[in-house]
Amino acid sequence: MFSNLSLGALGFSLDHPTAVDLAARHGFGGLDPDLGHLQRLGSPSAVEEFAAGVRERGLQWGIAGLPVDLYAPVTDFVTAVAGLADAVAPLTAAGVTRIGTWLRPMHDDLDYRHNWRLHVSRLQLVADVLAGAGLRLGLEYIGPKTFWSTERFPFLHSLGEARELIADTGARNIGLILDSYHWYTAGEDADDLAGLTDAEIVSVDTNDARDDRTRDEQQDLDRRLPYDTGVIDLDGFAAALRSAGYTGPVKVEPFMKSLAAQPVDDVLDDVSARLGRFVG
Amino acid sequence: MFSNLSLGALGFSLDHPTAVDLAARHGFGGLDPDLGHLQRLGSPSAVEEFAAGVRERGLQWGIAGLPVDLYAPVTDFVTAVAGLADAVAPLTAAGVTRIGTWLRPMHDDLDYRHNWRLHVSRLQLVADVLAGAGLRLGLEYIGPKTFWSTERFPFLHSLGEARELIADTGARNIGLILDSYHWYTAGEDADDLAGLTDAEIVSVDTNDARDDRTRDEQQDLDRRLPYDTGVIDLDGFAAALRSAGYTGPVKVEPFMKSLAAQPVDDVLDDVSARLGRFVG
Amino acid sequence: MFSNLSLGALGFSLDHPTAVDLAARHGFGGLDPDLGHLQRLGSPSAVEEFAAGVRERGLQWGIAGLPVDLYAPVTDFVTAVAGLADAVAPLTAAGVTRIGTWLRPMHDDLDYRHNWRLHVSRLQLVADVLAGAGLRLGLEYIGPKTFWSTERFPFLHSLGEARELIADTGARNIGLILDSYHWYTAGEDADDLAGLTDAEIVSVDTNDARDDRTRDEQQDLDRRLPYDTGVIDLDGFAAALRSAGYTGPVKVEPFMKSLAAQPVDDVLDDVSARLGRFVG
Amino acid sequence: MFSNLSLGALGFSLDHPTAVDLAARHGFGGLDPDLGHLQRLGSPSAVEEFAAGVRERGLQWGIAGLPVDLYAPVTDFVTAVAGLADAVAPLTAAGVTRIGTWLRPMHDDLDYRHNWRLHVSRLQLVADVLAGAGLRLGLEYIGPKTFWSTERFPFLHSLGEARELIADTGARNIGLILDSYHWYTAGEDADDLAGLTDAEIVSVDTNDARDDRTRDEQQDLDRRLPYDTGVIDLDGFAAALRSAGYTGPVKVEPFMKSLAAQPVDDVLDDVSARLGRFVG
Repeated sequence: MFSNLSLGALGFSLDHPTAVDLAARHGFGGLDPDLGHLQRLGSPSAVEEFAAGVRERGLQWGIAGLPVDLYAPVTDFVTAVAGLADAVAPLTAAGVTRIGTWLRPMHDDLDYRHNWRLHVSRLQLVADVLAGAGLRLGLEYIGPKTFWSTERFPFLHSLGEARELIADTGARNIGLILDSYHWYTAGEDADDLAGLTDAEIVSVDTNDARDDRTRDEQQDLDRRLPYDTGVIDLDGFAAALRSAGYTGPVKVEPFMKSLAAQPVDDVLDDVSARLGRFVG
Repeated sequence: MFSNLSLGALGFSLDHPTAVDLAARHGFGGLDPDLGHLQRLGSPSAVEEFAAGVRERGLQWGIAGLPVDLYAPVTDFVTAVAGLADAVAPLTAAGVTRIGTWLRPMHDDLDYRHNWRLHVSRLQLVADVLAGAGLRLGLEYIGPKTFWSTERFPFLHSLGEARELIADTGARNIGLILDSYHWYTAGEDADDLAGLTDAEIVSVDTNDARDDRTRDEQQDLDRRLPYDTGVIDLDGFAAALRSAGYTGPVKVEPFMKSLAAQPVDDVLDDVSARLGRFVG
Repeated sequence: MFSNLSLGALGFSLDHPTAVDLAARHGFGGLDPDLGHLQRLGSPSAVEEFAAGVRERGLQWGIAGLPVDLYAPVTDFVTAVAGLADAVAPLTAAGVTRIGTWLRPMHDDLDYRHNWRLHVSRLQLVADVLAGAGLRLGLEYIGPKTFWSTERFPFLHSLGEARELIADTGARNIGLILDSYHWYTAGEDADDLAGLTDAEIVSVDTNDARDDRTRDEQQDLDRRLPYDTGVIDLDGFAAALRSAGYTGPVKVEPFMKSLAAQPVDDVLDDVSARLGRFVG
Repeated sequence: MFSNLSLGALGFSLDHPTAVDLAARHGFGGLDPDLGHLQRLGSPSAVEEFAAGVRERGLQWGIAGLPVDLYAPVTDFVTAVAGLADAVAPLTAAGVTRIGTWLRPMHDDLDYRHNWRLHVSRLQLVADVLAGAGLRLGLEYIGPKTFWSTERFPFLHSLGEARELIADTGARNIGLILDSYHWYTAGEDADDLAGLTDAEIVSVDTNDARDDRTRDEQQDLDRRLPYDTGVIDLDGFAAALRSAGYTGPVKVEPFMKSLAAQPVDDVLDDVSARLGRFVG
């Protein structure tokens, strides 16, 4: 695994060339591609040239964000899927192989099984198009009870459910986005990660939790940087990834507004050191 | 539909012959059979004689409690099912046709789909034996969020889910136990009841809710007698049952400890009047 | 129910205005709309004017063919669904409410459950768009064993399976196309039709079978006109539709090449009489 | 993997001590336990003594037959499961860890999904009891089209379906019985075996097919000894098992009545040589 920079996940809005510079300068192993930037480059050759520059800086690609809203009204959804092959072509040209999204863990109208069918249905279509573009789709389950318990019908919010959903789609290019924060809030431990393989994991987030809240009180958008509080067993989490032979990106996504108020270089020095400790 | 007496649901522990007397004296249309009492009568002919006495008092049978724990360890469960035909034979002899249980709306280990499969699996076996005894099995979904949100994996807690579970079993002798309290706490309204038929409903409970709590704050075991607070739209609930052509028993189950501290005749006068208003 | 003319199902290729003339002249109660013709009329007002002419002849609309290939590669499929609302707009303008397709009863690569998921997935998307156009989608299961046994994985080929698929989609505007030929070849009888309602049935075909073949030898594309051989219990089939209160179209689809070689008026006199006997 | 003797699968009826002798004398690596014999030994210590003798001859245990009929009426089924722990106790005492059964690939009344649910339901209960006895349950899918196409509803008859059924039970002690004959008749090839692990495979059968029939004409109960005709790619099959790291028993089950008419020693010399070639 390698440390991966996502400026957006830290709250910074900077352009993609600057992100590349910062990733290289602060010793990250890679960075998340900015699909919008690649699209605006216009031609495949311009994209390839840009990607060559990234590689020359010694950087790998992390994971792009899926430009399809899984929860859109059906006409919007099929229109987005019909345009998806074109939309992600720049990612293929750049050599990106990972793209991802998160799964909403509740619904006010669709009960669990109807919601499951909607997910299987839509993910199959999306994954099929992405397979044609050489992309693996990562799905992130969301663990906090303060989130999944807010509507009438809780939905999947655990690793086991996410793996079964992926199996149910029958798609060979769907895998997991694992986040220590969701693993912790879902009440999971190292045993739940046993048996995972690199082929199942598309991307990883590592975060810590607040130490003044119980597990069930944690909020999805209020986390801590890895190793901040020690609430989450990040050593166990990292060890499981090593056992799985995981080779992909690891980033932080703490949802701490205070970060973007600090000098970006200070923040990245700190984040890079924490990720360095994690990837070992 | 007819008003139905369940002394146990009111908190009273009185023997079955006394219950028959009270039901007749206070104008109920029927009462729940006490399986233990019928079993202790010993012979089919003794049971038939007892049941004839109940009919002569103008009373119909309500619903018996299922003597199988759906959630028992597997060996205990299959042993119970293997003995079920003998256990319920007195109900058949007495002319009882309804038996029921409630569905636990969460689980700490089994996620929704695994829990669903356990329910389908076990209910199929139970229903098959009950069919041989001429019994319809009623299933009660449980609505309060304060209950289904207390473990890692919420399970079914709505009418739509209960109907789909029943369909999934493929058993023709499984139906619903509807309780206005669960209907209300599940966030359902009269539209959700549209299209129901008498054949789908095995038994009905009618209760009201506390008026000093929001819907999501209501507790499963702290309810009010029907028409007490007006929180629940019992007129809409009763109208939907009439539209369905419902012909079965209706009882109250308020879980109010204060009732058993009062003279039983006073309580039954009150309950009988409330049920009389409900069944119209 | 009413007798419905589908020239295509009889092997004739005649334009839509001619079909309208023939339907009226030969005493049919309705005819299948020709979506291509309606699309070529160009404007909603031209379509409305044409439809008014059909109504003035005393004719109702039968059922249109779904212009989406459920089995297309995914990009073709989502492109078709993205364009479906526009494609079927002329049907809405004409007052058509029924559209349908048949379900392929086997697959060489997808096993039953994977094929089921594909159907649920794609039918949900299609039905959702059609609901916006005021259209009900009819699905026809295919019964002959000589068809479903020809690839590695047989798929749904019975009424019970079709009803469960429809329930699984959760779509309220999907129903059945019932064909006496599939009902017979699937080994079903009048009991299997018990409990059906008008709301579940979108369209009906009535055909007879060859009397020199066993049920399992019958070929999908070699049937007989209703009442030709008496192999199929059309009286039982019609009685079940009457019990269901069925109000929709009934047509023949015999796949007999000999028909198109005869004068169309002779054929339609005969077909109209047979359908008249069926709808009673 | 090791060569495994099953006299019953060859058509011989000889007592268990004789089978042990023959297995040792003809160089087999193991033999199938005879549950009836072990039960008749009476006490755990007698069973342990017998099993010690088997081990001293250098023999491992193959696989026992499951003493529960998955397809029995429900009361018979639950009674059998309630008695299963006692019934298999001698296997545990003997050190046997593998037990198995085959899956009927069609049904005349239950459609695929209802049959699937019956299998999940019953297998969960059986597997749970077997887990308590330290036994892994092997399931054998049946491939010949001449078998699965004989009733109204074909059921699972391929490796992929069997793996999905096992996953659906959620039982960790259910695995596969692989038979080259079913693998061939199901239309599968070496790719379908890719990715299998030792943990998924409980037992293996190796057989060849008649060379005067097409794949779809092969009969379930008329096979050939391995390497007889060369119709089945046994080298590819064995290579896949080696890739999986398979460590369990391999036997033949040719259903050739001619074998039992020959001297048992001649037959076992031949079978042992063929299995020796297979296990390499």
